Amino acid sequence: LPFCAFLGTLGLLCVAMVGSWCQHWRGGFSLDGSSRTFNWHPVLMVTGLVVLYGAAALVYRIPNTWNGPKLPWKVLHSSLALGAFVLTVLGLAAVFRFHNSQGTPNMYSLHSWMGLATVLLFSCQWAAGFGAFLLPWAPAWLRALYKPIHVFFGSTILMLSVASCASGINEKLFFSLKNGTMDYKLLPAEAVFANTMGLLILIFGVLVVAALAR
Amino acid sequence: LPFCAFLGTLGLLCVAMVGSWCQHWRGGFSLDGSSRTFNWHPVLMVTGLVVLYGAAALVYRIPNTWNGPKLPWKVLHSSLALGAFVLTVLGLAAVFRFHNSQGTPNMYSLHSWMGLATVLLFSCQWAAGFGAFLLPWAPAWLRALYKPIHVFFGSTILMLSVASCASGINEKLFFSLKNGTMDYKLLPAEAVFANTMGLLILIFGVLVVAALAR
Ligand code: HEM
Ligand code: HEM
Ligand code: HEM
Ligand code: HEM
Ligand SMILES: O=C1O[C@H]([C@@H](O)CO)C(O)=C1O
Repeated sequence: LPFCAFLGTLGLLCVAMVGSWCQHWRGGFSLDGSSRTFNWHPVLMVTGLVVLYGAAALVYRIPNTWNGPKLPWKVLHSSLALGAFVLTVLGLAAVFRFHNSQGTPNMYSLHSWMGLATVLLFSCQWAAGFGAFLLPWAPAWLRALYKPIHVFFGSTILMLSVASCASGINEKLFFSLKNGTMDYKLLPAEAVFANTMGLLILIFGVLVVAALAR
Repeated sequence: LPFCAFLGTLGLLCVAMVGSWCQHWRGGFSLDGSSRTFNWHPVLMVTGLVVLYGAAALVYRIPNTWNGPKLPWKVLHSSLALGAFVLTVLGLAAVFRFHNSQGTPNMYSLHSWMGLATVLLFSCQWAAGFGAFLLPWAPAWLRALYKPIHVFFGSTILMLSVASCASGINEKLFFSLKNGTMDYKLLPAEAVFANTMGLLILIFGVLVVAALAR
């Protein structure tokens, strides 16, 4: 439980850091198609596909869930996962809108290929989890067969998501910091802040996977 | 066993692809401090900290290792890990040499922070595995205590390594492909090739972690 509180704090810290990075250094948020629209992308991806996702994955690790009826916990688990999915889709919408309004092609970078693959796996996970565990008529053998697969992809998708965040933050810093005293190479305050944030996101992911592995 | 053969082929394919990327599109290899010196970096990191590392981690998953004396397998496991470590150090030496001879600062990017953290964890893993499992006088309780930690970090380090490769390939493509018809955004053949290579490296990592998890 102190571990739970620590993970929760770390998750919130990641969200707060990505929010204040975009607000303080990257010009804030808007829906006008400029780089201020792009800024929703990191915030929503980290909040949705890392932090809310991690919360959803850890629901069954709370000891309270081990006795009593299972359905309310299933509903909580899948609602958190659904919330994560909604933020993820909005986060992708933000970057596609930004690219379209700037005339930038979509889906060229390794970051975007890896990111989209992660989101597609996540959608399959949601649909399959829904079909196998939430629909009351799914047969027990199907649940038993699918469960280890579901748990394995639960961790795998989180690792891929965290890896996507790292490459995304890295490339955004190369794009944004490239003149004079603000060059990424010279490690200005923004770079130290965002690199640290990237490492904290990685640590959050590793700790959630560790909690799931036990 | 067919799975073993498949993983081996995939690993060799990753090594072959990173080698031919650097040879064919990035100008080949040399030790003169130019970007041809840099080219050793991706090749050695992928060969060492992904493919050889994966081979080392999977030694105890080969059924032959489950009966008979354990020492030869331990020696194989730690020699492969040592080989991976040597290639890793040479791979880092290549990029530091390139940066120094170009006057580029070291250790500014999130890629480099994440990469160095991975290599430091790998060194600890090697030293601790050596101390706890190979030295004959290590007490049994220490081995029992440390073993789950060793196995957990075995998978974690591989995930971090694969994530470092993804951000490294991504940034290298942004650096190298930035004019006219060769812009990364326009997805020239090199970009398709290297993005695909990045995804294959990720898949290799996920499959090794999956094999370790069972
Ligand atoms: C789970 C996390 C993430 C996923 C799944 C993801 C996915 C994507 C996808 C699919 C695109 C392509 C959009 C298009 O081409 O129109 C993209 C673009 C981009 N993302 Fe992310 N992203 C994630 C996190 C981040 C984070 C945390 C940042 C930090 C700034 C970031 C920075 C970027 C940038 C700069 C682009 C535009 C350049 C490019 O296409 O690579 N991403 N992302
Ligand atoms: C993409 C979204 C989802 C993710 C990332 C996810 C992730 C996970 C993870 C990591 C676990 C293992 C938890 C543990 O071992 O403590 C798990 C278990 C479980 N998930 Fe999901 N899940 C998702 C969607 C769903 C949905 C929509 C349902 C439908 C109800 C569902 C039902 C379950 C059930 C019932 C278990 C526990 C199996 C058991 O203990 O009997 N999951 N999920
Ligand atoms: C496990 C894999 C990897 C690790 C641990 C790693 C580690 C590092 C480190 C520590 C640096 C900083 C060197 C310095 O500042 O002098 C660096 C730089 C670099 N690496 Fe990697 N690397 C890995 C894989 C790759 C791959 C596959 C590529 C693909 C091209 C790559 C591309 C780069 C580039 C372009 C730089 C220079 C720019 C920068 O400092 O970010 N790396 N790497
Ligand atoms: C950094 C290098 C190393 C890595 C990445 C690594 C990784 C791993 C992994 C992933 C496992 C679990 C294998 C499985 O569950 O099938 C493992 C087990 C083991 N490792 Fe390492 N290892 C490293 C270094 C060492 C060293 C230097 C030794 C010294 C002999 C060692 C001794 C062992 C032993 C004895 C086991 C099996 C424990 C048992 O089954 O009793 N490892 N290692
Ligand atoms: O390794 C590097 O390559 C580029 C640059 O030298 C080529 O454009 C860069 O900024 C690095 O740190």
